[in-house]
Amino acid sequence: MKIAVVAPSCTLKAEAAERVTVLAGARSGCELVIHPQCFLSDGHFAGSDAERLGALREVMADESVDAIWFARGGYGSNRIAEAALADVSVPAMRKTYLGYSDAGFLLAGLHKAGCEVAHGPMPQDVLRDGGEAAVARSLDWLLTRDPEALEPGLSGPAQAYNLTVLSNLLGTAVEPDLAGVELLVEDVSEHLYRIDRTMFHVTASANVRQIRRLRLGNVSDVPENDPVWGSDEETIVRDWCARAGIEYGGRAAIGHDAVNRVVPFGRTSS
Amino acid sequence: MKIAVVAPSCTLKAEAAERVTVLAGARSGCELVIHPQCFLSDGHFAGSDAERLGALREVMADESVDAIWFARGGYGSNRIAEAALADVSVPAMRKTYLGYSDAGFLLAGLHKAGCEVAHGPMPQDVLRDGGEAAVARSLDWLLTRDPEALEPGLSGPAQAYNLTVLSNLLGTAVEPDLAGVELLVEDVSEHLYRIDRTMFHVTASANVRQIRRLRLGNVSDVPENDPVWGSDEETIVRDWCARAGIEYGGRAAIGHDAVNRVVPFGRTSS
Repeated sequence: MKIAVVAPSCTLKAEAAERVTVLAGARSGCELVIHPQCFLSDGHFAGSDAERLGALREVMADESVDAIWFARGGYGSNRIAEAALADVSVPAMRKTYLGYSDAGFLLAGLHKAGCEVAHGPMPQDVLRDGGEAAVARSLDWLLTRDPEALEPGLSGPAQAYNLTVLSNLLGTAVEPDLAGVELLVEDVSEHLYRIDRTMFHVTASANVRQIRRLRLGNVSDVPENDPVWGSDEETIVRDWCARAGIEYGGRAAIGHDAVNRVVPFGRTSS
Repeated sequence: MKIAVVAPSCTLKAEAAERVTVLAGARSGCELVIHPQCFLSDGHFAGSDAERLGALREVMADESVDAIWFARGGYGSNRIAEAALADVSVPAMRKTYLGYSDAGFLLAGLHKAGCEVAHGPMPQDVLRDGGEAAVARSLDWLLTRDPEALEPGLSGPAQAYNLTVLSNLLGTAVEPDLAGVELLVEDVSEHLYRIDRTMFHVTASANVRQIRRLRLGNVSDVPENDPVWGSDEETIVRDWCARAGIEYGGRAAIGHDAVNRVVPFGRTSS
């Protein structure tokens, strides 16, 4: 299996690329190709919009590539998502796409276009504490569809997003159909008042109100609220689910950390 | 004119209440009543949802009240907006509503319900440098519809919002019709990557794409971007307007500062 790594958002650290190359090299039948675009830098981004889009479209069109693994999150994939999805070719349709966080804009649009996508750890995650196990989980799933890599509570068609990314893709060209879906959300570095406001927005969506249930992944690195918020992220999420008539299904093993598990979109998993 | 102050978001500072009471007391024909709910505190908010909603509904129903002035922003008006607007009474329809920032959720919903609303300085703004002039502008407009208080570039039906608030009200019960509107946006304390992402979201909206043009108020207290963003807020806004086929109409004199001007919704101004 040939896995191409591109960076639609921010620049991949060289150390992460080196360590993931070693991990992939130890797997039989795994050819990992890190596109040089991953190391470009243009302000906030891993190269200009044209450079990031060009690299993504190049690997999407490459018949020799089986899977596209997004290098890392940050911000920026939304700036090229609509153009990348304007005409999805047959070779692009045959691939698997893996990532999370800011890559959620692309996962949403690719899933909407009919491609196989999954939420899961990315190469830059190898730099986290326990990051090698996280990255190994993604390789396990890409190479063998190992059920051990999956989020353990999945029981029907699922989609997983960073909550803030989901809020920002509603009403855009990449918004997927969420009817009947088990929706998993996680977030990082957001104040609790922002989590509350984003849940207000997300749960007001007519599309989101058609989900089967919602589960909450990790909400990490929460900045201090001023004044003190007085409850926690799960209370917030339960509250907005109840207001919107959405079933709350408990916690999920996804997030910006090493326990982040793979969630294939639209699948009934083991 | 009797003006009632309530706080649908965060707690009003006593010093602000005192200073605005003095300013209003010096105006002839101005009775300012600061509802005691403004000084409640419950976690992040000026009282519980029930307390904030109760005070708002009380003054909305009060036939002796001519105008409702929101005390300050922060966060929380969205949590009570739909309930406050569930059955707008005849006395509530006869009033004017003034505020901005987080109060935008209410301004949007009240405008949608057919009430007279305006974006403009709030009592807590008196604590800013130059804040007395800002608050005087709101009093001038409430008491005499003084055209000097208005944002000077208005040339047709307008609406004004905090950009992040606008993003979070799209798709909710308080989203107003924006067709043909001159849309003014401002923001505070948001990283430039967030401004970019929010503009992506807002300009993707089919409703927003029907506006007449967009103008950009102040974007203040922007935290440092890491890495350096490489452009500025106006470049960001121009870019997304161009992508979405929205006319960009230049800068506007609104924002989280003392130059913030009054923008009556849906009016053709002088």
